[in-house]
Amino acid sequence: MKKRKIARLVVVSSILLGSVGVKVFAQNQEPQETKLPPLSKQEMEMAKQIYFNRCAGCHGDLRTGAIGPALTPDKTRALGLQNIEAFITYGSPRGMPAWGKDGILTPQQVNMMARFLMYPPPSPPEFDLPDVMKTWKLIVPPNQRPTHPETKNDISNYMGVVLRSANKVAIIDDKTKKPVAILATGHALHILRTDAYGKYFYTIGRDGKVSLIDLEYKHPKIVASVKACYDARSVEVSLYRGKEGDFRDKYAIVGCYWPPQFVILDGMTLKPLKVVSTVGYQVGTGKFVRDPRVAAIVASYYHPEWIVNVKEIGQIWLVNYKDLKNLKITMVSAAPFLHDGGWNSTKRYFLAAANASNKMAVLDAKRDKLVTLIDTPKFPHPGRGANIDNPKYGPLYCSSFIGAGAVACIGTDPKHHPQYAWKVVKIIKLPGEGGGSLFIKTNPHTKYMFVDRTLNPNEKLNRQFYAIDKNTLKVVHTFNMPADLKGRFVDFDFNKQGTELWVSDWDKQGALLIYNPNTFKLIDVIKGPWVVSPTGKFNVYNTAHDIY
Amino acid sequence: MKKRKIARLVVVSSILLGSVGVKVFAQNQEPQETKLPPLSKQEMEMAKQIYFNRCAGCHGDLRTGAIGPALTPDKTRALGLQNIEAFITYGSPRGMPAWGKDGILTPQQVNMMARFLMYPPPSPPEFDLPDVMKTWKLIVPPNQRPTHPETKNDISNYMGVVLRSANKVAIIDDKTKKPVAILATGHALHILRTDAYGKYFYTIGRDGKVSLIDLEYKHPKIVASVKACYDARSVEVSLYRGKEGDFRDKYAIVGCYWPPQFVILDGMTLKPLKVVSTVGYQVGTGKFVRDPRVAAIVASYYHPEWIVNVKEIGQIWLVNYKDLKNLKITMVSAAPFLHDGGWNSTKRYFLAAANASNKMAVLDAKRDKLVTLIDTPKFPHPGRGANIDNPKYGPLYCSSFIGAGAVACIGTDPKHHPQYAWKVVKIIKLPGEGGGSLFIKTNPHTKYMFVDRTLNPNEKLNRQFYAIDKNTLKVVHTFNMPADLKGRFVDFDFNKQGTELWVSDWDKQGALLIYNPNTFKLIDVIKGPWVVSPTGKFNVYNTAHDIY
Repeated sequence: MKKRKIARLVVVSSILLGSVGVKVFAQNQEPQETKLPPLSKQEMEMAKQIYFNRCAGCHGDLRTGAIGPALTPDKTRALGLQNIEAFITYGSPRGMPAWGKDGILTPQQVNMMARFLMYPPPSPPEFDLPDVMKTWKLIVPPNQRPTHPETKNDISNYMGVVLRSANKVAIIDDKTKKPVAILATGHALHILRTDAYGKYFYTIGRDGKVSLIDLEYKHPKIVASVKACYDARSVEVSLYRGKEGDFRDKYAIVGCYWPPQFVILDGMTLKPLKVVSTVGYQVGTGKFVRDPRVAAIVASYYHPEWIVNVKEIGQIWLVNYKDLKNLKITMVSAAPFLHDGGWNSTKRYFLAAANASNKMAVLDAKRDKLVTLIDTPKFPHPGRGANIDNPKYGPLYCSSFIGAGAVACIGTDPKHHPQYAWKVVKIIKLPGEGGGSLFIKTNPHTKYMFVDRTLNPNEKLNRQFYAIDKNTLKVVHTFNMPADLKGRFVDFDFNKQGTELWVSDWDKQGALLIYNPNTFKLIDVIKGPWVVSPTGKFNVYNTAHDIY
Repeated sequence: MKKRKIARLVVVSSILLGSVGVKVFAQNQEPQETKLPPLSKQEMEMAKQIYFNRCAGCHGDLRTGAIGPALTPDKTRALGLQNIEAFITYGSPRGMPAWGKDGILTPQQVNMMARFLMYPPPSPPEFDLPDVMKTWKLIVPPNQRPTHPETKNDISNYMGVVLRSANKVAIIDDKTKKPVAILATGHALHILRTDAYGKYFYTIGRDGKVSLIDLEYKHPKIVASVKACYDARSVEVSLYRGKEGDFRDKYAIVGCYWPPQFVILDGMTLKPLKVVSTVGYQVGTGKFVRDPRVAAIVASYYHPEWIVNVKEIGQIWLVNYKDLKNLKITMVSAAPFLHDGGWNSTKRYFLAAANASNKMAVLDAKRDKLVTLIDTPKFPHPGRGANIDNPKYGPLYCSSFIGAGAVACIGTDPKHHPQYAWKVVKIIKLPGEGGGSLFIKTNPHTKYMFVDRTLNPNEKLNRQFYAIDKNTLKVVHTFNMPADLKGRFVDFDFNKQGTELWVSDWDKQGALLIYNPNTFKLIDVIKGPWVVSPTGKFNVYNTAHDIY
């Protein structure tokens, strides 16, 4: 009896292993690889969760690689258990964090993850429209929400701050520098967007949960929520108003990492309307990609469209939301892996980082076409980027880099400065060695742009940020983290007037530092037990108006 | 040692079984289902091939069901081995052929297939652009091909005849009724299309292989070929000429059943240019479909677009080929499962059968929108359909049905006959009981349209076809298969002048019967050892001009 059961298992295994393309054991055949260390069902579940939270971002949900290398069994088994453990413990100069050394994973967890990685990647489940629908909660219907602010605060000057490991958002009044609300949102909150009028914040968690926050309440509150995916990074609203209609606030869109899809929602209720798959074939190689993730999404002002970066296949999809039943998508071939990006100053051109290709892709949102691909230093990561107007080069779009200690500025004015258009006109070296920058930002009311260096392995450098003069394109000031604060600098935004530069001290118990963006003087520090791992910051006015 | 290996297998099995969503065995757990009968690796491979050739068409490549029910292990195990064997042997009134009784599968094969169906479906492999590229053969470059016909035959009056189980196409000169070439093509050849000028035939096999046949040679020959998929049904060329350019013969497209994709080729060389996935979410239910198959494709005359029926998700995709690097697709929500269809008489509206919904979808190819869905009798299967001009109802599009012994005619003239537009104005009952029709066809030079009944289980009826008067909309004549021919009637086409109606005697050793389409007299019978299982027939002129 026992023997027969085993025989059946062997058969089933060989069928299934055939189906995932990894020949570990074939029927009547010895395992050909190193003996696999055992992994219990419980460990499998724990490891899946850790992988999803810590590893999938760089190595892909299916472990097929993205910024980080592929972790398929052929590679991990060749490395062997001890080498994998070493990587997980100590990280790598290429950008892998030191999960063990930094105390984020215990030695037992490191060992479990190493074993997990030697097995074929478990396929994550689908999450389609019926699944999304089940999670939808309309807490306050639109007609029962405030029609005007129930507070004397200037809500357009609220700052939404991601409290990442608390899974919360803090909404801070610029006048008092105190939170008017701290709300539980999706897990590992990623970004915030506003509607066209600045009445609402839309938040997206890495767990795919969107929360709609009505800011007009005395204490802002969540009026609707929905989980659109298992893993997500982006949310955006419809912003087009013009000849083809007024679509402001009509729809929202969520970009998923897993399943590979985007989800269109009703803008005011978050009711799920449509799911569209991004499974496809990579630009250039033509290779099939089962899990192309959706990275940055922005709303076009030229057409009723969203500009959707489909990462691994290297395509920018222009999703026209004018008629959801006859949905029009223009699949623009750019380069892999499309990640973040932002508008040029006229908001006609969208610049997207293709980080595996070390390029910026330029999309013409008026003509719905790729303009060009621009070679850049290693691993561009502009966030939304910084738009400046330089006396010599005219309007420039500047990006910083994870892989290079530099800022590169690209001419964006083909009409009046054609000789500089879509060329890197200047590379500005940052002090010290190495890259690690995540964000660059500016504002019309300052003469400078500001660059962080969060991922630099050097503790001195990741606790610095820099001011670059918009005219001379030189680093003119280095900001150092006050000694009593222990985290790294990350991400900027300004208040509405552009008189305050906010930056995060990213730490378990962190802080928000506020500087004068012209004198560089530290104006204020926001601290308190609620300031848990502050990362992204989103001023309502600047977010609603795409000011960067 | 042995025990450890087994333990590992159990772990791997449970991981993988988790990943396909079928919990057959979990770790430390008894199998919960009936004991599975064993299936050897060799049997698995044979069963896969038989399934692919015989079953996948109706039950889906992943066995998730299509016209036929799903054959996932939860269902097959509940049925049990003997019941599955009975179904395979004797078929079902719903349309399942009697594979065993009809001698197509041996009792041993029936038993093997029944066991195979109780195991989880093996996932077929991908076939992406690099794979397609490897199969591309340019046999004669375009500049070395004839520039004018090297024969005195009227090549626009050639009839291409599918010799299905011979995996060949016969090209027959209408004047002599003799083949000018018999060419080996893809496996189980499915259809033929012509280029815009009628110089070439494009053939598509069920194995995804496209052959390009130059008809201007004295003996037509294959000048290029490529395998675009593992499983396919449709091929089409670009036909648009107008304000946006002249795209005639610039591109070809192949619609795949597996992988779920379409492939765009250079029209004159078949060089593979682009692969696009159809993985998506079903209209109505919003359910994820891993394998939406591409059924009929037609080229629009209004825009540089192909109209692509994506079957299981119930969407008609309008694929704009004007700019392949910025590929525009309009995904029109219709109804599942979109199969075949054709133009109305003005070629502005495309009518597509949604066979699982018992509807015809009407697409406006000028405005790129769905016009409406029309309820019809069970299981419409128009082929390309038949366009007639009725004195009472005006222009009508008529379809026959697999599931009903009837022809339904739909008004197609919203301008001059708005009261009949997009309504079934007439249902014409066929003699005898049951459906089973595959094709209906007409031609401007006959007063009748003709309907076959190939799949009707009654041997008398499947050896009949019928003439319906275009004015009275009544069956006026029944054609019976001559007693010396043993097969069933299937599919029609006319010669270029419309003076001959060709129909197949579908048999291992079959024949082509030629009738006068106005007097109904049998004019000629084409027989010979080469007439092996003749099915589809494609007159060059009628195909190039979409005459039906």
